[in-house]
Amino acid sequence: MALYVYKFGGTSVGNVERIKAVAEKVKRTHDLGDQIVVVVSAMSGETNRLVALAKDMQQNPNEREMDVLLSTGEQVTVSLLSMALHELGCDSCSYTGSQVKILTDSSHTKARIRKIDDARIRNHLNEGKVVVVAGFQGVDENDNITTLGRGGSDTTAVALAAALKADECHIYTDVDGVYTTDPRVEPKARRLDKITFEEMLEMASLGSKVLQIRSVEFAGKYNVALRVLSSFTEGKGTLITYEESQVESALISGIAFNRDEAKLTITGVPDLPGVAFKILGPIADANIEIDMIIQNIADDATTDFTFTVHRNDYQRAKTLLDKTCADLGARNVTGDDSIVKVSIVGVGMRSHAGIASTMFKALADENINIRMISTSEIKISVVVDEKYLELAVRALHAAFKLDQEIES
Amino acid sequence: MALYVYKFGGTSVGNVERIKAVAEKVKRTHDLGDQIVVVVSAMSGETNRLVALAKDMQQNPNEREMDVLLSTGEQVTVSLLSMALHELGCDSCSYTGSQVKILTDSSHTKARIRKIDDARIRNHLNEGKVVVVAGFQGVDENDNITTLGRGGSDTTAVALAAALKADECHIYTDVDGVYTTDPRVEPKARRLDKITFEEMLEMASLGSKVLQIRSVEFAGKYNVALRVLSSFTEGKGTLITYEESQVESALISGIAFNRDEAKLTITGVPDLPGVAFKILGPIADANIEIDMIIQNIADDATTDFTFTVHRNDYQRAKTLLDKTCADLGARNVTGDDSIVKVSIVGVGMRSHAGIASTMFKALADENINIRMISTSEIKISVVVDEKYLELAVRALHAAFKLDQEIES
Repeated sequence: MALYVYKFGGTSVGNVERIKAVAEKVKRTHDLGDQIVVVVSAMSGETNRLVALAKDMQQNPNEREMDVLLSTGEQVTVSLLSMALHELGCDSCSYTGSQVKILTDSSHTKARIRKIDDARIRNHLNEGKVVVVAGFQGVDENDNITTLGRGGSDTTAVALAAALKADECHIYTDVDGVYTTDPRVEPKARRLDKITFEEMLEMASLGSKVLQIRSVEFAGKYNVALRVLSSFTEGKGTLITYEESQVESALISGIAFNRDEAKLTITGVPDLPGVAFKILGPIADANIEIDMIIQNIADDATTDFTFTVHRNDYQRAKTLLDKTCADLGARNVTGDDSIVKVSIVGVGMRSHAGIASTMFKALADENINIRMISTSEIKISVVVDEKYLELAVRALHAAFKLDQEIES
Repeated sequence: MALYVYKFGGTSVGNVERIKAVAEKVKRTHDLGDQIVVVVSAMSGETNRLVALAKDMQQNPNEREMDVLLSTGEQVTVSLLSMALHELGCDSCSYTGSQVKILTDSSHTKARIRKIDDARIRNHLNEGKVVVVAGFQGVDENDNITTLGRGGSDTTAVALAAALKADECHIYTDVDGVYTTDPRVEPKARRLDKITFEEMLEMASLGSKVLQIRSVEFAGKYNVALRVLSSFTEGKGTLITYEESQVESALISGIAFNRDEAKLTITGVPDLPGVAFKILGPIADANIEIDMIIQNIADDATTDFTFTVHRNDYQRAKTLLDKTCADLGARNVTGDDSIVKVSIVGVGMRSHAGIASTMFKALADENINIRMISTSEIKISVVVDEKYLELAVRALHAAFKLDQEIES
């Protein structure tokens, strides 16, 4: 007898028929004798409807009240799914985050889970019931309702799987697994049977939005075996594992990309200690997130400094940087908001040399000019002109033979 | 400084604009320095929407899950109203039934309140906040969400007023008070400044559906001063008080009526002990509620037995009674499902003779035939043919001079 935590997102429970289909899927596994906890999100569209109501009420809705409001979305879904299970003759019981209880800190709209009480859920599982839990929500120590932020249902599922020491945590989505890259850009993209947590983290943070990053971190930290599967088709999906159990010998696992980049350069900055802080401090103070940072020595006395930000923040960042340029007596500020970032990700590059040169050669062969380079232990990112995005992804996909199944 | 509990029903919070209007009304009183707890229902239409979803899921929805589902309706309203108050610069805090906590028994969909913890609410009131509480819902001792049944928000408001020893509990509805009778039937109907709890109970149970009966019982038991007012217009409404503080010297306070009646008669029943139980037992076993009961001696050995039921139960009751008739060897069963009940209600009739004869004369003057009569300490009810309903109400309204203001 295994214990599984299943998570179904908003699209998977988007209407009456889909909730019934989820109930049937759950019942099939439950009938095999396994114990199942199901975590569900709000029905798709519901959260947006509630947010719109809130904005009608208050320009900047009070965050505590926002959590009270939004948490009703999952509460509706858990009760409906539990009813659908009852209708199939499958005994079940629904839980809100407060009922579990999923204790969080008091950071409304972006709370973090502190502790999960698994006693009640275990009792119901041992009685043979399917337990249906509202994702995305918790409760602080004063019984205030909190939410974990958008996508927080993944985190709920992983945290429950950790607390219950579940055999696997299944994240059902509208894709049937993690792909070597976005199939809309490269039709030859291939579903991976396995991917490591670290690779998944890099892929997720780079825009392959299959899973919420925090849930992957959580799964890694608490040793939860995560599997991404499709709600709508059968299949084994992609298992997200530790490197130790990684059997594929691929050098790299996938190609991630991010369209929403912009870069800013300040040149001729007097090269003195503390200059990086003087440049980036005002940007950070304005709550603008900085991604890549590169500093070059231009000549003996000055330095050039380049960084990337989200495209939405480009104008604000440029205005701040112009002021810094004047303050520091630097030469000038240039920028470009039609760039993209393309990254290759893989734990294999730790132990293999030549990955970077393969990447750069593939891009050079297509006459794609690299504007910036940044590397981490398991990732190499390049910034290129926006117009080259698709070409770069396909060239790299081919160069690393990602369309070919690896023999294990 | 006074403490008020306000209750706004579904129509009063039916859309964004109305919720904002409620917030403004609440703020006006709060600005005068009074402490205010607001109890709200689900936005009108929301409960029906949720019930329809539930029925799509399960033919007879699981009652525990139904409560989880329905309680989201008020949870949405409390958060929205609290946001609207914040927007007006009025500090406030919302509560679900579970957060208060409003402890009930475990009778899902029709739970009864056992205990209210007022500590948290008091703290927030003392901090100068308006406290917004979800009506209709509570929580049992195992943290299961319960609901009090339709109209339960009135009960929540009265129970909170009792627990907090509020100065008054205001029930805001779409009518501006309790009337001497339904103004749609008698345009001369007059709003009463005051009515006693007992009269209100009789009026409510007879179909003047301004307040839920249980909330009136609760208010009487816990000495809560209740006032019924309009959400949409200004005015003092109707205060529901104890007889002691009743200053109007009216003989009767109002005329109630009920259109949904049907009557059944079984004749020639052998007059033996236990015969009433043999006739009514099967009806009660079928969960059919019996209203009036009259037994006449027909001759030495047999008796005629008449009772009324809700019109919807008429056919089922008749089928059962036909069987009883055969079993008992009674003569026959007759029935009529086009009758109505008209009642005069007033504590004044305790101390005044001649009320009944005034009533019967008024009906006789209009040639209205009385089919049944039933009396209680503060009420006289008659059953008449449906076609006479409006005529009877107007005749009695005039006979007891209910259109005239009483000097106090």
